[in-house]
Formats: sequence, C-alpha cells, structure tokens
Amino acid sequence: MSLNTFGHLFRVTTWGESHGPALGATVDGCPPGIAIDEAMLQHWLDKRRPGQNKNMTQRNEPDAVQILSGVFEGQTTGTPIQLMIENTDQRSKDYGDIAQTFRPGHADITYHQKYGLRDYRGGGRSSARETAARVAAGGIARAALDALVPGIRIKGYMTRMGEMEIDRARFDWDAIDGNDFWIPDADAALEWEAYLQKLRKDHNSVGAIIEVVAQGAPAGLGAPVYGKLDTDLAAAMMSINAVKGVEIGEGMSAAMLLGTQNADEIFMGNDGEPVYSSNHAGGILGGISTGQDIVIRFAVKPTSSILSPRKSIRMDGTPTEVVTKGRHDPCVGIRAVPVGEAMMACVLLDHLLLHRGQVGDGPRGKIG
Amino acid sequence: MSLNTFGHLFRVTTWGESHGPALGATVDGCPPGIAIDEAMLQHWLDKRRPGQNKNMTQRNEPDAVQILSGVFEGQTTGTPIQLMIENTDQRSKDYGDIAQTFRPGHADITYHQKYGLRDYRGGGRSSARETAARVAAGGIARAALDALVPGIRIKGYMTRMGEMEIDRARFDWDAIDGNDFWIPDADAALEWEAYLQKLRKDHNSVGAIIEVVAQGAPAGLGAPVYGKLDTDLAAAMMSINAVKGVEIGEGMSAAMLLGTQNADEIFMGNDGEPVYSSNHAGGILGGISTGQDIVIRFAVKPTSSILSPRKSIRMDGTPTEVVTKGRHDPCVGIRAVPVGEAMMACVLLDHLLLHRGQVGDGPRGKIG
Amino acid sequence: MSLNTFGHLFRVTTWGESHGPALGATVDGCPPGIAIDEAMLQHWLDKRRPGQNKNMTQRNEPDAVQILSGVFEGQTTGTPIQLMIENTDQRSKDYGDIAQTFRPGHADITYHQKYGLRDYRGGGRSSARETAARVAAGGIARAALDALVPGIRIKGYMTRMGEMEIDRARFDWDAIDGNDFWIPDADAALEWEAYLQKLRKDHNSVGAIIEVVAQGAPAGLGAPVYGKLDTDLAAAMMSINAVKGVEIGEGMSAAMLLGTQNADEIFMGNDGEPVYSSNHAGGILGGISTGQDIVIRFAVKPTSSILSPRKSIRMDGTPTEVVTKGRHDPCVGIRAVPVGEAMMACVLLDHLLLHRGQVGDGPRGKIG
Amino acid sequence: MSLNTFGHLFRVTTWGESHGPALGATVDGCPPGIAIDEAMLQHWLDKRRPGQNKNMTQRNEPDAVQILSGVFEGQTTGTPIQLMIENTDQRSKDYGDIAQTFRPGHADITYHQKYGLRDYRGGGRSSARETAARVAAGGIARAALDALVPGIRIKGYMTRMGEMEIDRARFDWDAIDGNDFWIPDADAALEWEAYLQKLRKDHNSVGAIIEVVAQGAPAGLGAPVYGKLDTDLAAAMMSINAVKGVEIGEGMSAAMLLGTQNADEIFMGNDGEPVYSSNHAGGILGGISTGQDIVIRFAVKPTSSILSPRKSIRMDGTPTEVVTKGRHDPCVGIRAVPVGEAMMACVLLDHLLLHRGQVGDGPRGKIG
Repeated sequence: MSLNTFGHLFRVTTWGESHGPALGATVDGCPPGIAIDEAMLQHWLDKRRPGQNKNMTQRNEPDAVQILSGVFEGQTTGTPIQLMIENTDQRSKDYGDIAQTFRPGHADITYHQKYGLRDYRGGGRSSARETAARVAAGGIARAALDALVPGIRIKGYMTRMGEMEIDRARFDWDAIDGNDFWIPDADAALEWEAYLQKLRKDHNSVGAIIEVVAQGAPAGLGAPVYGKLDTDLAAAMMSINAVKGVEIGEGMSAAMLLGTQNADEIFMGNDGEPVYSSNHAGGILGGISTGQDIVIRFAVKPTSSILSPRKSIRMDGTPTEVVTKGRHDPCVGIRAVPVGEAMMACVLLDHLLLHRGQVGDGPRGKIG
Repeated sequence: MSLNTFGHLFRVTTWGESHGPALGATVDGCPPGIAIDEAMLQHWLDKRRPGQNKNMTQRNEPDAVQILSGVFEGQTTGTPIQLMIENTDQRSKDYGDIAQTFRPGHADITYHQKYGLRDYRGGGRSSARETAARVAAGGIARAALDALVPGIRIKGYMTRMGEMEIDRARFDWDAIDGNDFWIPDADAALEWEAYLQKLRKDHNSVGAIIEVVAQGAPAGLGAPVYGKLDTDLAAAMMSINAVKGVEIGEGMSAAMLLGTQNADEIFMGNDGEPVYSSNHAGGILGGISTGQDIVIRFAVKPTSSILSPRKSIRMDGTPTEVVTKGRHDPCVGIRAVPVGEAMMACVLLDHLLLHRGQVGDGPRGKIG
Repeated sequence: MSLNTFGHLFRVTTWGESHGPALGATVDGCPPGIAIDEAMLQHWLDKRRPGQNKNMTQRNEPDAVQILSGVFEGQTTGTPIQLMIENTDQRSKDYGDIAQTFRPGHADITYHQKYGLRDYRGGGRSSARETAARVAAGGIARAALDALVPGIRIKGYMTRMGEMEIDRARFDWDAIDGNDFWIPDADAALEWEAYLQKLRKDHNSVGAIIEVVAQGAPAGLGAPVYGKLDTDLAAAMMSINAVKGVEIGEGMSAAMLLGTQNADEIFMGNDGEPVYSSNHAGGILGGISTGQDIVIRFAVKPTSSILSPRKSIRMDGTPTEVVTKGRHDPCVGIRAVPVGEAMMACVLLDHLLLHRGQVGDGPRGKIG
Repeated sequence: MSLNTFGHLFRVTTWGESHGPALGATVDGCPPGIAIDEAMLQHWLDKRRPGQNKNMTQRNEPDAVQILSGVFEGQTTGTPIQLMIENTDQRSKDYGDIAQTFRPGHADITYHQKYGLRDYRGGGRSSARETAARVAAGGIARAALDALVPGIRIKGYMTRMGEMEIDRARFDWDAIDGNDFWIPDADAALEWEAYLQKLRKDHNSVGAIIEVVAQGAPAGLGAPVYGKLDTDLAAAMMSINAVKGVEIGEGMSAAMLLGTQNADEIFMGNDGEPVYSSNHAGGILGGISTGQDIVIRFAVKPTSSILSPRKSIRMDGTPTEVVTKGRHDPCVGIRAVPVGEAMMACVLLDHLLLHRGQVGDGPRGKIG
C-alpha cells in the first residue's frame, strides 16, 4: 500500500514522475451525468502551469490534459476517469549531476532510504509536478460540486510570503485573479514582486501561507470521528509538497484565546438557517460543516532548490556541496494556490457523497 | 461510512458515547506475539483520567480498561483486540437542560443538522471521552513499537496555554511527568496553575499547544503521496476533539523563512547514518521519516463548556442563553497530551507495518 | 491489516474468540434514525443458537446480545453500534488435549504457521462462533433495509445435505421456518433428520448447500468492476466458516449451457418495469442488480470435528490420531442458513448506501 | 466509490472502455527493485489477445502495453505503475444499432438503470476488454512473486466447455500451452475445436469452467476473517466478466461428502514441512494457505452476444428482437484462462505483502 489514492467515495489516484513520459490521475467514484470536457480541466491546470511569468520557474510545460476514459458524449458515465498529462519539456541533463547526491530539504535521501533506489530525474515522484494531476482531478470535483451544490464557491489566495503579508482591511476578492501572487490586493502585488525578485537575485527562496475558503457548502458534511471534515482537509493540504502546517479557522492562535473569546454565538437567520456572530471555528464543529465559510490555511516552506551552496553527502557517504541548478520557483507557495483549491474541491465532493450515502438526500435535522 | 476507523494496517475503530454503558476500541492488525496486559494499558489511561487534580474536570471516572479478545496467555494472537471501558460516573441530569439547546462551540448543532437526532448526554459521540479509547489503543501500539523498534520513545508536553509559554532554554525532559500540565519545566508549573485557577474562577477557559516528539524512529517510514507520514500524523492530531491547527517541524513559521535558513544540511555520522545540521523539517522529508526526531505540534481551542453565558438558539429556533454546567476542564489541552502521544504511537506502528509490507524487513538504501 | 472488517459504507468489524469472555461486532456506517432494539437482534441470533434441537451441537449458549453504543432512545444515531455477546458455556477442558495437536480440516495448523501462536480453545478466532456476531450485525442491516426498501425480503434455506436434496416441485416458502433444517418442504424434514441422526451415530458429519434469495431489491445495486454485487456477495459467503463454493443464478452449471439457453429475455411489465423470461443470471447483470430475485448458493463442507479417528501430527511434528470430542454439529450447514441471510442483508444495505452515495436518491435511468 | 480497485496492499485500479481511446491499470503498492519491462507484460497479454485463431473473436487488437510510470532503469521504484493499452481496432458502427436497445444477458440495461446513461460502444466499461488491464497488472504481480517466492508457479486451464470435459487421467501440464483451449490434453483439443466450430455455425455460444492452480505458495497467507485467501480469490474470480460460480478445492461437491471423506490427514514430510494425504481443502484452511497447491475453479456463462435472435426491449420500452452482430468469442471461457491466472497472481502477491506487513519476514510457527 504505497497510498497514492485519496478520498473515500470520490477517489483520486495520481501517478507519474516529473520526467517520465506522462503523469496523471485516475478518478473513481464521480457521479454520472456531470458535463466534463478537457477545456474545463485545462482552465484550472493553466492556473498552476509553470513558465507563465517571471515569478515562476521558467520550465515551460503546456500541461495539456487528455481524458482517456469515463466521459462519453460530454458526460461522466460513473466509471473511472483517466486524466493524462504528457511531459514534454524535460531537461534531464539538468539533474544528471544529482543522481549520486542528496539535495538538502529534498526527498532524495528518504526515497533512497525507503526504497533502495529512486528516479532522481527532477525528483521523480516527489516532484511538485505531481500536483498537476491533483488540479486536473480537482476540475472534475468542481464540476460535480457545481452540479450538486449550486452557488458553491472555492477560492484560494496567498496571505503571506516571507515578510510580505496581506492587509485584511484591503481584502478584495476581485483582485485575486489579477496578479501573479493570487493575493486579494492589487496594489500590494508590485511590492510582493519586488521582494521576490530580490530574493531570486540573491539565489534564495521563501515560504508562504495560502488560505482557501469554501462558500456555500451545506451544513452536515463530515464523518466523525476519523473522517471529520477538518481531518480530511488537513490531510489533503499536508499531503501537498512542502506543506509544514495546516490551520482551520483560528488555527494555532486558538491556543491564545479564552473560552469567552472563542465561542461563535448562534442566532436564527431570516431564512430559517442558523447564523453565527463570528467564525473562529472555520465553519466546522465536531468535524461537521456548520454552513458557514469553510476556512483553511497552510504554510509552504521555501523552495529547497536554490543556487546558494548547501552542505550534503553523496550516496557513498562522502561530503559535498550542492548548488541546485535547473529552473525552480523562488516561492512554490504561488503555485500551491490552485492545488489547495483542488484539494478543497475533492474533499468537499467526497464528503457530499459520503453524507448522502449514509444519510441520503432527504432533509435532515431542521431547526425551527 | 461514518469513518470511525483510523490506520491502514494497524486499524483502530473507536465506539461509544460519553454517557452510554461503555466505550472502547476495536484494534485490528496488531502483530502477533506482543506481550500485553490490562495494567500496561491502564498506565496510559491513568494519564488522561479526569478528576486527578484541581486543574481538571472533577468528573471521576476510573476508566478501567478490559481486554475482551485478541490476547491469549498474555500475548497478542494477531486477531482483533477489543478494549472496553465502562462508563460509571454519569450525571446525565447535568445535561438534561441542553437536550433542546445547542451549545456554542459544540457539535450539538452539527450532529443535529447531519443526523437529524443526537445523543445529547454529555455530547454523546462528540465528547472528548472518546479519546480514552484512543489512549487504550495507543497502549497496544506502544507495546508493539517497543518490541519492533527497541529504544523508540514517544513523549508529549504542553508548550503553551494562553499567555503561558515554555522557555526552551529551560527544557527538562524529566520534569514533564512531574507536574499537572506535562510541561518540561518544574518551576513554571506553579505559575501555570495560578493562571489557570484564575481563569476557572472567572468562569472561563483557555486554549493550548501540545508538542509530541518521537525519538528513535527509523528512516524510511511514510507512504507518499497520500499516506505521507506527516499527512497521517496531521490527520491523526486534527481528529482529536477541539484541535484547530497542526504543525510539523517549523510549521506555520516556515512561511517566514528563506531557503538558505530552512535547509537542513546533511553530514555523515560516525555510526554510518546521516546526521543533519538542524531539524526544520521535523524529521520528515517528502513524507518519509529521516531518522531524526519526529516533531509535531497541535493547537487545542479553549473549552467551549464555560459558566459564562453565551447566546444561542433552541431546536425550535428560539433564542436562548447557554451557561454550561457540569464538570469541565478549564483547559482541555492538558488531557490532550496523552492523546497526542497515543495517536503518534498508532501512526508510527501503522507505517512501520506498511513499510515492511511493501519493502520488507531487509536492509534498504544503505548510504556509504 | 488482519482484515476483520467487511463492507464499504456499512462496515462490520467482528471480534472475539470462541472461549474468550465475549465476542461481538462493531457496526459503523448505519444510517441514523433506524429503530433498533436488542429483541430485534435476538430474534435472528436465536435462529443460529446452538442447543436448540438434536440436530445441532448440544453446547448451550444463550447468545444474548447487548447494544453498547450507537443507539439512543431506540434509534440509531449514525455513530458506531457496538454489539456484544458474552460467552457463558465454555468447556475449555474439552479442548485442552488439542493444545499441542493440529486437527485435520481445522485452522489449527494454519493459524500456528501464520501467527506462531494460537488461542486453541474451541478454535479461538477460527471458530464458527464468530458467525453469531455476523447474525447480530445482519439484524441491524435488516432493520435499515426494511426502512429504506419497504417490502424487501431475504430468506435462506438448505437445498442439499449429503444425499438429501430438496424437490423444487414441492418448494414451500412457509415450510422453511417450521423444521430443523430450514428446508422448504415440511414432509421431507423427517427423512433428513433420520439421515443426519444415522450419520451422527456413525460418528460422522456431512456437507450441505444453502440458498439465499433476496426479493424486492431495487435495480441498480452494485459497483462495477471490483465491487460488483455478485463479487461482494461471493466474498461474503466464502468468508463464512467451511464454505468451499459459491454460485450466482445458474452457478457452475452455466458451463454446460448454450447462449441460446442462458439468455434471460427482456419484456416490459405492466408496471413500467422490465420483466424477464427467466433468471439464469440470478438477478445480477454486469455486477448490477436487475430488480429480479437475487439468488446465491454456497456449499459448506462436512464438520471437521468428528468422533472418528483421523491421522495428524503434534506441534513437535510427531504423528498422532485425533478424535475430536466436544459438542459439535453433525452438519454445520444448518446453522449457516441464518448466517447467509445476515451476509446478504449486510451486502445489500452496503450497496444501497454506495449507490445513493454515488448516484443519489433521484430517479435514475427510467425505461419507457 | 465505484470500486474499480482491487487488492489491499498491492492495489490495481483498472480504467477504460472497450471503444474509448485507451484502457489500462494503475498499479500501486508494488515492492521496489523488481525487474519489469513491457515485453514481460506483453507475453501475458498475448495469451488473451483476440484474433489469434478461429476459436476466438476476429477483432484484431495488438493490445500493446506501455509503462508510463513507476519503473526506472528497468526496475520498479515503489511508486504507482501506470499501464496503458491503446484501443486501435474499434468498429463502433457495429454497435450503433444497439444504442437504444438492451441486449439480453448484457449489462446494457443495468448500467442504464444505475447510471442513467452508458457508453454503449462495445459494452463500454462492462466489456471483457477490461480484463486486458488485469492481465497486464498480473504480469507485474507475477514478476514480484517470482522475486519474492522463487519457484512459485501459477497455471490455468479449461476443464469443461459445454459437453466437453477433460479426462483427469490424461492430465498433461505440458500440453496446456500447445492448444487453443488451454486444456491439459493435446489429443482432446481437436474434438473440442470441432464442438465449438459447430456451435459457432449454429450461431450459438457455450459456457466453460476454468481451473487455476498455484504451486509453491508458502503456508500462512490469508487474513482471517474477511480477507481470507479463499474469500479474496473468490471475489477476484467472480469479478471477471460472465463468471457465475467459484469453487475452492472440493467446491460445491463438498456438500455431498462425509466428514470422514473430506478430512485431509496430516503427516510430517521429510523436509520438516507437513504433508497431507489429500487436498479437498484446495490448499486453504481457515482462510490461510497450507502450503499445498492452491486450487480454484470458476464457471463462465456462454457468450451473450450471439447471432440467434433474442427478445428484448428498447429504451423507450417497446419490444424488439436482438441479433448481436460484431465479432464475438463463441466461448469467452477460453480467454478467461489468462485472466484467472492474473487474478491469482495479484491476490497471492497482495497476501504475501499483507502477511509480512503484519507478521514480518521472520520465521513463524515452525513445526517439529
């Protein structure tokens, strides 16, 4: 069980290495009758595609997705959907020199220790290229969610990149898609770019925090106690390359709060649905969605592949210094935004299917 | 699939409600031939047992565990181990008044919205009492780990409780078991107690951060990409009641680091094993253990059950104010320490079994 | 993963040994709001209870089931249901003499070879007593099915016992519950009894075939291609102790048929549902139910525990002769009838939940 | 969960439709370091390839398999292996006329009833072409088994085809690969061919029984009680298209045996391993392998696609007569032989990994 599948009912198995012939996702359990085409998936893949601007790696992959099964005459059939993305721009020679060396901060050494051999080209399976398959699968999940939960909206953005942090007072949803950093503040983008370009010239990289919000998700999603909605979201985000922390609602700062501060008080809304005075809970109580916005954040470490020399060892145990050439993102957090959105979409669809499996489509637990 | 099971090969299914006749864990997949008795499990249960001191709920449960199957003549047989803890001190009347009311910050309203009905006594299934079953199962995992990985050590402690925070310069492993807060600083405990008792008198509660460290775990544990060791640890901790954030190594603060700061440089140790200049990674690279200390932190929100009135609604939608009587912990984080240790033990054993399932016991990927 | 769980969404984990303190089932994923009480489950347990007549083992177990969780005020809550049956009439001394010996036809030797140790008392985990837990869990599944599929009916009966075979021309549903053999022919029962009692006096035992039919199951159940309804039913029946063969519809004799004979022709019924000219398929096409009767048969080998001496070896490898004392069924097939019914109920409920999870409650694929 | 995955640790997910661009298998959990190349897999695919002789469909598919991931420099890396087979010879026009019609004995009507739509081209997902992906995955399993269990041998053959049945007295292992029917009797093949060709000319088809034997599998494989080796083998075989019955060892005829006849007596072999006087059990006791030959049989119904007219209905409910044109096997059982072998290989490898996961590689339960 090398566990390349996630999800309970909506199951996504990703496969492929950074420099193999192709990579992709086998998507099983999608409801039938959902309208899907390659262009819909390509829209999301293009968000994480490399080479789009100078704040990204200059590796130029079209990341064109092909649907090989599970869709007939434009609709899902309920059978497995195979999504394939061919690798085209592989400069394996960039990596030849690290075949015998372990790059600090990379999975080179642990894959070697676990498996006894590794595909060293571009990190092989441990490359962030694997997330392209997640984004493609997330496109399927988004289409199914749109059909099953009209009006649901999933949006991710960066909130921090090293010393740069967004100003919540200037939060602008409409700005997010208009800048290279997916930040909700058009004016701040220039400053973020100057900061990142200086780091790049310094042969350095930097970490980031991404926040993903789901609006319009129904109450009642989540399978306590080991398939809680927050549990599965945390696992989904932590499984993304380079992620080191995950927060729901208040997150780590909940430790600094008092009970009187943290409680989200409950009122009856005009539409007969409960409303809350605040959302410290991040839209989840007891592992089940409340109907509020679902809010998750995750931190991405700085890119380990940098041009500044770092001490390491070779497979034979001799010491060496590593300078990672090749074309790398100075901040992998930027491209983690669409990945986080895709994971949120997959988890929400999965729990929507789980909920109706156990509880059905009928009205549940009305209030008032 | 209401998902009350966690683990891949070492599978723990917990069952039971706070005020039902009993609760417990069905532990499947334990290796055979492991010496187990009830006293070994009771040792860990006693760490989280309520009513031990004035910093805890005064509910007095012996939490005596019985082994009903899977152990014969003192050894595990490889068949399912049923662990049962009978509920004895149930004051359901304490809860009668909330049968029709949703307590802010609790799962009352979401269980109602999901299932259409709920066992309201003490929170039913959503009560933190469920974690007693995890601790019992964790005792099995610890015994198996000790047999399979001699010298492995799993230890948890609090690092923060509201305004109180440990001083890393004064870190003392030996102090942890000597105070009510499981903090690595004997002298600080009195200050922490004063702080907590004042909050209690103010009818308030407070959050906390718990850190759990595993020392001596072998390199190579973890199943990329969706069963990464950090992914499964994050899920395990996030599934604990009231947890809102999880961090591996640097955690959220990785977002503030530069690549040059974050890289853990690699050297060859005298024993032929690699050593690292630092452990920003928290002992995990690419989802696989490096052999360094595995370090995870999680934040617990303040207890929602407080004596200060909070606005809420009844099932009929009418407004009300809730003052949660009953006997509650002013800081649930204290009792989350042994729970976090138990989850760490279960996840590590599970991945040890997964690793030898796929890769076997033979030596893998030697260096040098 | 010692795999003591079956089911995908309706998940049953059985635990316990023949002569331990108790055995039971942890039932996870039951829909909420289903009316359940112990008497309902006891009704089914009493069907397989030993010691009821002279055609069974004289071991006298009340097999009284207790519900320890997941049911509140008479209804399922959607949380795990723990069912416990205490072992009372344990004559372990009957088994002391086989602690060092492997009984031919039993799992003694394979458990020893797999696990290196075994609970030899009454076969421990490999005892057919484990099926009591299945029957209890099946009672939960039946109650949920009755609520979700009004009019569904699951009935099992014996069709063969050694030389005895039922006469299909005399098939009488109403006779089944009126005789010790669950055969659909009241008059034949006396002959079956005479046959079995002679075998018992000869210190022998005999095999049997059980047929289980589900009437009124909706079309559309089954998850191709590896969770086909017939695949899961075959696994469920083959997992019952002593079962050596499983057939759906025509079963093995399909090999003797021509295409012109085997095709079930399709017509339109008056109620707007398709009807078929025959049911060679056993109610399943392509792994999905057709709406016809679902028909499965399974063969049970003769009881291995007999008073006639058989050659075997001891743990030290020395030869010996085994005469199995203790109280055993001359035909375990009799008590396999309610077990087969329980497995059918669990599988059908599981697939009903799977179907509505993926496809929903809405009308699907109407014809005409 | 549309359940297109089988296996616990060695997990195979097949995807693709009969007339889509491609089909394949995503193989996850293969041990690392196994030598694999496309030619090795092609060898097995060629056994089930259509169009090889006049006893098969004349559809001519090269069924050329490509390895897209998980193999590096000729060895498995422990990451997912993607196997793709492109569909080349698709005559969809042959199927256009059944877009609105349900073919008797086919899954057309049940897919429609379940999903509300279907890929009708050649049966889409329900086509036996899906088994090509199983055979490719089985090639991976065979390579891993050969590496982990030197000398293991898995062989399938037909034992019956309508009126034709093999003569056990003339059983010849070496004859199996030398005739179109994979029967262990070279001389009988001509008679079988005459029989089948007459049926074909009569526009008819016929069923078959296939037996698969594994020799040299170690004792101790199988995970009681719901992952028993026979349970998983029965599920694996029943999941193959058109299979209606599965037997282990004595199979259904166990019902006719007495306990004195059925018991396989145990003796000590010269090599210190137990030997048995017979193998009624088919090499499995209590769901765990004994070390004897593992023997499973399964029955395949006659091909439903025949040129003789059969009554059916259209999607609009109106009556019609169906004559299935296109190119079909008169006996699908022939091509089910390599599929049964592949399933046996996958299940044995899976249980080998499960066993060492729970029990390890160390010696277990020695006798003598």
